Amino acid sequence: MDNPVLVEVLRGETVESRHRGTLAVVDADGALVAGIGGVAAPVFPRSAVKALQALPLVESGAADALDLSPAELALACASHNGEQVHVNAARVMLMKAGLDESALECGSHWPKRMQDVAHLHQIDESPCPLHNNCSGKHAGFLGLARTLGVPTQGYVEPDHPVQQEVRAALEEISGVSLTHAARGTDGCSIPTYAMPLDALALAFARFGTGAGLSPLRAEAAERLYDACVEAPFMVAGTERFCTDVMELFGGRVFVKTGAEGVFAAALPELGFGVALKCEDGGTRASQVMMAAVLEALLDLDEDERKGLEPWLRPRLDNWNGRVVGAVRPVAEAFAPLRALA
Amino acid sequence: MDNPVLVEVLRGETVESRHRGTLAVVDADGALVAGIGGVAAPVFPRSAVKALQALPLVESGAADALDLSPAELALACASHNGEQVHVNAARVMLMKAGLDESALECGSHWPKRMQDVAHLHQIDESPCPLHNNCSGKHAGFLGLARTLGVPTQGYVEPDHPVQQEVRAALEEISGVSLTHAARGTDGCSIPTYAMPLDALALAFARFGTGAGLSPLRAEAAERLYDACVEAPFMVAGTERFCTDVMELFGGRVFVKTGAEGVFAAALPELGFGVALKCEDGGTRASQVMMAAVLEALLDLDEDERKGLEPWLRPRLDNWNGRVVGAVRPVAEAFAPLRALA
Repeated sequence: MDNPVLVEVLRGETVESRHRGTLAVVDADGALVAGIGGVAAPVFPRSAVKALQALPLVESGAADALDLSPAELALACASHNGEQVHVNAARVMLMKAGLDESALECGSHWPKRMQDVAHLHQIDESPCPLHNNCSGKHAGFLGLARTLGVPTQGYVEPDHPVQQEVRAALEEISGVSLTHAARGTDGCSIPTYAMPLDALALAFARFGTGAGLSPLRAEAAERLYDACVEAPFMVAGTERFCTDVMELFGGRVFVKTGAEGVFAAALPELGFGVALKCEDGGTRASQVMMAAVLEALLDLDEDERKGLEPWLRPRLDNWNGRVVGAVRPVAEAFAPLRALA
Repeated sequence: MDNPVLVEVLRGETVESRHRGTLAVVDADGALVAGIGGVAAPVFPRSAVKALQALPLVESGAADALDLSPAELALACASHNGEQVHVNAARVMLMKAGLDESALECGSHWPKRMQDVAHLHQIDESPCPLHNNCSGKHAGFLGLARTLGVPTQGYVEPDHPVQQEVRAALEEISGVSLTHAARGTDGCSIPTYAMPLDALALAFARFGTGAGLSPLRAEAAERLYDACVEAPFMVAGTERFCTDVMELFGGRVFVKTGAEGVFAAALPELGFGVALKCEDGGTRASQVMMAAVLEALLDLDEDERKGLEPWLRPRLDNWNGRVVGAVRPVAEAFAPLRALA
């Protein structure tokens, strides 16, 4: 079955490009509340599951032992811009574990924003692993390794105790055995395991409600959820979907992007988890898909509606600042979700 | 009809994302030699038609009046990286027309390569319109305006004589009236007109062979073709598909990328023109699609096969330089083209 077109890119009044996708809304009992496209197909969840990957950090007692603040826990769940505040916080997390950036095995890349790139150029420096969008997650992994009393070196490898703990948490919360799952290597070198999209949605229904989880895990999930919605800037940064949307909804929603067009959300007030993937891996489309899900499922007040609009129907400007087009959800495709609200 | 998947993105051994597309191979008589997907659907050709948009510059005598070199003509057909050599050449083109960068109406953006961005930061400068990937095309438009004796200001507007000349050239070489065509505004502020993909392919069959064109236009097409294959670095730059592929094939092919996943080619030895569009607008996929077309249609020697490989099946490395995946064409999808060779 072909996945349907969920997002259109307009130039002037004409549809220029189209993005297809799959989408699953699942309740905490695992019932598929709404599905679009092939929701049973396995996808690599990539960075959309960072908050789930941070569960062992909290459950193990490492977060308390290292005295991690809510902002630092949010950074452990982040794909951040590499802004100064993110870099500093990652450095502090490592210091609390008695480590520095030389322990990070995530690799380096330039910060997302041009002004942060400019700063590095002006002081004649290159980016270091702290600038990597995953540095907070990796600082969390290293903190966990220290608390577990295992070597920090090689913490990104699939058979390292840290990744074994992370994998077990993913299996338990999603209800999927990953023993025979396809494994890939993520951008930051840790393993990523393919899981059905509906299982990923279930994981986030449980993450947002605690239903079906042990008390310890439910408490850890709640603490991470609260950390992210209280410090959403740490989860992404300036002009980023995850930050803006979590700020806008003030605790009503948790959202997290992943590479290759994956997006996950927890909507505790409805008891739902959401997982979606843009077939072609495009983030410009996965963001619009997630905004369309929120618009369809949630009862929005005027401020929320207004704040969501730039993410729901982003304007495309050209190099002269002329409005030349827009990205928009295909209304009919999201009708089954609207029927639920 | 759903457009087929033409390109797959692998993580490890698993297909993570998929790109669909449409593709037309047309001979100089306008016969559709091979088609994939909905080839009659109009697409905005965007920058893929820059060489066609440069025809009036040559035909009008402006190129000779301004003493434009082959490298400068190639730059007029370019979507360049904004490297120093491109910026300098655009500046010289404007000087030859008695103008400077203040006449450019394309807007500014940062150069493509980080080292060129770094250079600007280190000298505390921002990019100017000369860095815009379209600056050569715009310098050509301005040169044409001077030769036509019309005002240079507003040369990007649809009703300006320069854009009228450009539109007439596009209509004639594609055989399509654009009077009722959907019009959009391109990234650089000039109009772009939607035309059927097969008409776009016909335009490039004519561009590469001269067949069906007036002697004046055929000569201009040949001169632009030769300029691009002789100075392919000017058409794009370091580590770019168009530059690498035209260098590799030493005159056998002309290729040109456009935004939103459009790609065009002329293959004079076969008398074919090619146009394709990745449905979702992804350049990583449109490049692989064009490489697959070249591999399928052309008789390749060992060097050509080896040189094409990194564009046909690009490796995906992560931030640590680990190979984590690849992009590859779907072999069966291109079988109809292979049958032609």
